[in-house]
Amino acid sequence: MTGIAIFGAGRIGQIHAENLCNNKNAEVRHVVDVVGQAARDLAARCNARASSIEEAIADEAVEAVVIATSTDTHAELIEVSAKASKAIFCEKPLDLDVAVASNSIEIAAQHGVLLCIGFNRRHDPTFNRLKQDIDAGLVGNVEVVSITSRDPSPPPPEYIGRSGGLFRDMMIHDLDMARWLLGEDPVQIFASGSALVSEDIAAEGDIDTAVVTMKTASGRLCNITNSRRCVYGYDQRIEVFGSAGMLRAGNQTETQVEHANGDGFRTDPVLPFFLERYADAYRLQLDRFLRAVAGDDNEMPDGIDGLKALKMADAAQKSCDQETAITLSL
Amino acid sequence: MTGIAIFGAGRIGQIHAENLCNNKNAEVRHVVDVVGQAARDLAARCNARASSIEEAIADEAVEAVVIATSTDTHAELIEVSAKASKAIFCEKPLDLDVAVASNSIEIAAQHGVLLCIGFNRRHDPTFNRLKQDIDAGLVGNVEVVSITSRDPSPPPPEYIGRSGGLFRDMMIHDLDMARWLLGEDPVQIFASGSALVSEDIAAEGDIDTAVVTMKTASGRLCNITNSRRCVYGYDQRIEVFGSAGMLRAGNQTETQVEHANGDGFRTDPVLPFFLERYADAYRLQLDRFLRAVAGDDNEMPDGIDGLKALKMADAAQKSCDQETAITLSL
Amino acid sequence: MTGIAIFGAGRIGQIHAENLCNNKNAEVRHVVDVVGQAARDLAARCNARASSIEEAIADEAVEAVVIATSTDTHAELIEVSAKASKAIFCEKPLDLDVAVASNSIEIAAQHGVLLCIGFNRRHDPTFNRLKQDIDAGLVGNVEVVSITSRDPSPPPPEYIGRSGGLFRDMMIHDLDMARWLLGEDPVQIFASGSALVSEDIAAEGDIDTAVVTMKTASGRLCNITNSRRCVYGYDQRIEVFGSAGMLRAGNQTETQVEHANGDGFRTDPVLPFFLERYADAYRLQLDRFLRAVAGDDNEMPDGIDGLKALKMADAAQKSCDQETAITLSL
Amino acid sequence: MTGIAIFGAGRIGQIHAENLCNNKNAEVRHVVDVVGQAARDLAARCNARASSIEEAIADEAVEAVVIATSTDTHAELIEVSAKASKAIFCEKPLDLDVAVASNSIEIAAQHGVLLCIGFNRRHDPTFNRLKQDIDAGLVGNVEVVSITSRDPSPPPPEYIGRSGGLFRDMMIHDLDMARWLLGEDPVQIFASGSALVSEDIAAEGDIDTAVVTMKTASGRLCNITNSRRCVYGYDQRIEVFGSAGMLRAGNQTETQVEHANGDGFRTDPVLPFFLERYADAYRLQLDRFLRAVAGDDNEMPDGIDGLKALKMADAAQKSCDQETAITLSL
Repeated sequence: MTGIAIFGAGRIGQIHAENLCNNKNAEVRHVVDVVGQAARDLAARCNARASSIEEAIADEAVEAVVIATSTDTHAELIEVSAKASKAIFCEKPLDLDVAVASNSIEIAAQHGVLLCIGFNRRHDPTFNRLKQDIDAGLVGNVEVVSITSRDPSPPPPEYIGRSGGLFRDMMIHDLDMARWLLGEDPVQIFASGSALVSEDIAAEGDIDTAVVTMKTASGRLCNITNSRRCVYGYDQRIEVFGSAGMLRAGNQTETQVEHANGDGFRTDPVLPFFLERYADAYRLQLDRFLRAVAGDDNEMPDGIDGLKALKMADAAQKSCDQETAITLSL
Repeated sequence: MTGIAIFGAGRIGQIHAENLCNNKNAEVRHVVDVVGQAARDLAARCNARASSIEEAIADEAVEAVVIATSTDTHAELIEVSAKASKAIFCEKPLDLDVAVASNSIEIAAQHGVLLCIGFNRRHDPTFNRLKQDIDAGLVGNVEVVSITSRDPSPPPPEYIGRSGGLFRDMMIHDLDMARWLLGEDPVQIFASGSALVSEDIAAEGDIDTAVVTMKTASGRLCNITNSRRCVYGYDQRIEVFGSAGMLRAGNQTETQVEHANGDGFRTDPVLPFFLERYADAYRLQLDRFLRAVAGDDNEMPDGIDGLKALKMADAAQKSCDQETAITLSL
Repeated sequence: MTGIAIFGAGRIGQIHAENLCNNKNAEVRHVVDVVGQAARDLAARCNARASSIEEAIADEAVEAVVIATSTDTHAELIEVSAKASKAIFCEKPLDLDVAVASNSIEIAAQHGVLLCIGFNRRHDPTFNRLKQDIDAGLVGNVEVVSITSRDPSPPPPEYIGRSGGLFRDMMIHDLDMARWLLGEDPVQIFASGSALVSEDIAAEGDIDTAVVTMKTASGRLCNITNSRRCVYGYDQRIEVFGSAGMLRAGNQTETQVEHANGDGFRTDPVLPFFLERYADAYRLQLDRFLRAVAGDDNEMPDGIDGLKALKMADAAQKSCDQETAITLSL
Repeated sequence: MTGIAIFGAGRIGQIHAENLCNNKNAEVRHVVDVVGQAARDLAARCNARASSIEEAIADEAVEAVVIATSTDTHAELIEVSAKASKAIFCEKPLDLDVAVASNSIEIAAQHGVLLCIGFNRRHDPTFNRLKQDIDAGLVGNVEVVSITSRDPSPPPPEYIGRSGGLFRDMMIHDLDMARWLLGEDPVQIFASGSALVSEDIAAEGDIDTAVVTMKTASGRLCNITNSRRCVYGYDQRIEVFGSAGMLRAGNQTETQVEHANGDGFRTDPVLPFFLERYADAYRLQLDRFLRAVAGDDNEMPDGIDGLKALKMADAAQKSCDQETAITLSL
């Protein structure tokens, strides 16, 4: 049983809290949030205490922390947690600034603590199987990875300005998936984007529709399409083409009902958004984090993975701004 | 090049004529029809002559006949063709009367001529592959065959009375498929039917919706569902369950376009009716008949297959009328 | 919060216990089992007491009981629970004997207690949506219901003799689904069965493969196929054909990964068995039971549903034994 | 009935000849090929004459020509045909040189003759429906077009050097499809390519795997992936994402048979190559050409379409060589 402190009682913090409550290997001991009521409510649901950062860190029974606060607080929380020798699970991105993120990784390394990053999609059973099948050789040598990733609708206008932009906020997940599935770091990236969906996004100078191309040192290619609009649900698909075959990860639907009439055959739309699509992934993610903390298999993406994805997102942004390909050295 | 006489210039005769015209191994020499104009029109399209039965039979260059006239003329045409040593392709059913059909088979046998029956579905590439896969052992020992067969809409009222009823007119195809795929003759049949679709059919005392169950000597089971109504197209599916797996033959659609919106994912309806679904089957059927005539591989169902399907249809009708299971001895 | 006593700490009792533990509207207070250790283990997992029947019934905080013991004890437990005014959820079948089952229903009615039956499949999200869509008129008038239901492998030999036979043990679920989806009671049933899978089953005089046909008063038709063997998983599918369309409930797979190579495209097999396929259904079933106990919407099948399914199973057995159609009056 | 001369009796010329022979509105009068025997063989199959260019052009009964010779002869044949007032169908590409292609278009315009280009995929029933559905507003405003196009295997080594490279030889089809479906000309293109498949291709300095990104003036995005290797068949898919939905054009298989066992569900691989996949498209293409010649609806891509696709291919090649985005002005 691993003692846990949760930093952040917002939407994502609540998801983590619920999964930890139902996990036989975890004991949530503290919930910390700048909004006291939020901390107290969530703590009550977990049989935990609403605590300050200091109280949570000082608790020797806390072996691990889950950081689900706003991005600008990640670095500080990683530092205090690392100094107190707590294993760390931190939501993506580590930080919007590469230097700050690098520093966080260094600090964790200095104190010899685990620093895991919340790339939840790696734990999605379908995407995880895809990776296992690639590793098992089912496509032979990987040649092209193609990722389609579309949110159902834009985020609230007030979020856009502080999101870091589509590449750092949204595509960062896909960039991590791409690196993971390509099995190599990309050395070149080209990004093309438009604001076709939301006037708020256009007003912020951000984009809501993007296509990114990457190449690795050995010549493997990757393309990613992102959109902040998808009327048929949360479209999350990946195709991996190789010398010996293709692997395809499809979407999920709420039911398996199909209706036929003169217009044809109709199935459900795709699951609406990440809470539904990645419910299993969020649960398995913390399960694996707990196993890593316990010294069992470590299947978690770490700080370096987080940093590399951030660098890729930065390069994509630069490419999009400058309308030119960017050389990457991760 | 096989010289051919076509008896019957109606809808099905025209299909056969067109396929024969495009077949490099056939030469259509005569078209015979009681309606002179129909014969002349079709003959013109085939560069053939509109002839009488006698003229067509007397032509020594005619090696084979295709009988596509109304059912009540089949027996006579088989007899004159057999006596003239012509190979015979006859549309199903041989006759609505088992004794007459048996007699036709005997006559063909006496004269040593090929008598093939127009069970077109055996030649459908999807169903044919299903059979090949069963024979190749892909399902192990066959345990259950399940057939779904639905027409888009009832036949014209004037046809119903002389159709022989749903079992002999429509299900006879499925009964033949069942026997073929089961790999054994059924020994028991139970049929249950209703008139749910058409008042004309009800008025004739016929049914338009039916479920049939059959069992073979070794205990293999089969069910067939038929309906004279299907709003999403011509539903023609088969599933074969065995000790080592399952084989499923699905429907076909006009295109592979899929449309997604908030209501879900929609594909085309099924191909509308037999002319579209079985276009390939009709073509391949005559191709195989020509090969059989030429002494190559004979993959054609024969008179005995036609007779057994008719006996099964008769038993189904009796079962439905008497509401009891019928023992079959084919 | 509804106080609950669970009778039976076996496999199915444990599923119910776990779902109740995670349900915010339930408090499991007692676990009762003839095997004391089993009761104590499960009670410990639920923060409940391992109690005798009497202790559990005597607890006034217990508003409802969940009966998951062996079938031959159902009647007695229903009686003591009803007399103590507890709402009752009882696993199917109520009893293997129609008279006993009828008596249980009467006793529950006399004491004015809720008697719900564990037909879990009605709560499966896919099948439940199917029913909602039928009720919403998506297929128009229902004409044919077709159910394919195949277990992955036969039950252990020692279970076969006391199972009540395939119809009462396995098909009873499908018979209930058929009645539910047809929207009418069947008036005629015909069953055909074989022992193709298991020598143990054959030795018991039971069957392992069966096809059943039913007809309702208005002429709606239904067929059900059952097998105790299915190498590709737990095959659970339903098709409903109507005057205006078709609804189809498909299987589920563990992932949405598809693999393509020269052999074609391959997806996962079907989920292995009922624990996986019906995990949601088991959870939702008790959720709905708790709402019914609380006086909210009652969407639960009741004792009458259980009795009718049992009568249908009995008739199917009789039809199979006598090789004749059986008239039903439910 | 339109009189036709066919230039080129090679593989593609034979396809066109066969489709024209079976088309009631065409009469093939001449077959021209530098290899006399090839011309004579094909002419014999069409009941036509093996002629010289001059003889074919001089025949006043020839209203239209079909040019299926090697690319370097297209310009000359277009010129002599245009001067003789023949309607022209020319295989893609018009020429590998933009200036030459432009000149051909001008000459056709000067003589007022129809100049149609062999972009066969526009006539594929699935892709054609996709376009119709876009035009009918089924996806609202088009935002992203995504094309996956993979050949089963590389062309013969001797062909590579004179192919013009992957972009001009293979992707040109996809570039035309992209422009057609985007409904706007692209203004920017970026191409990234690798030689992962074939050492022969690498030795020629060409690539066999490529990803291209394009943007239109209004900000619509497009990506295309090409590969000269695809072990599961000829992969030809398109997805179009818009403000109101998505349209997807899938692959075709030889049969609709599905096989299930413990490994899962397996369907056929994709149709092997363009002869199979685009059989209907080739037939419909000439049917539409004949209708255009007859003054009916003109649904044919013309010389300008051919020229623009060529310019796009040139820009893609330049982008790939220079590793930078290229601005396009079509």
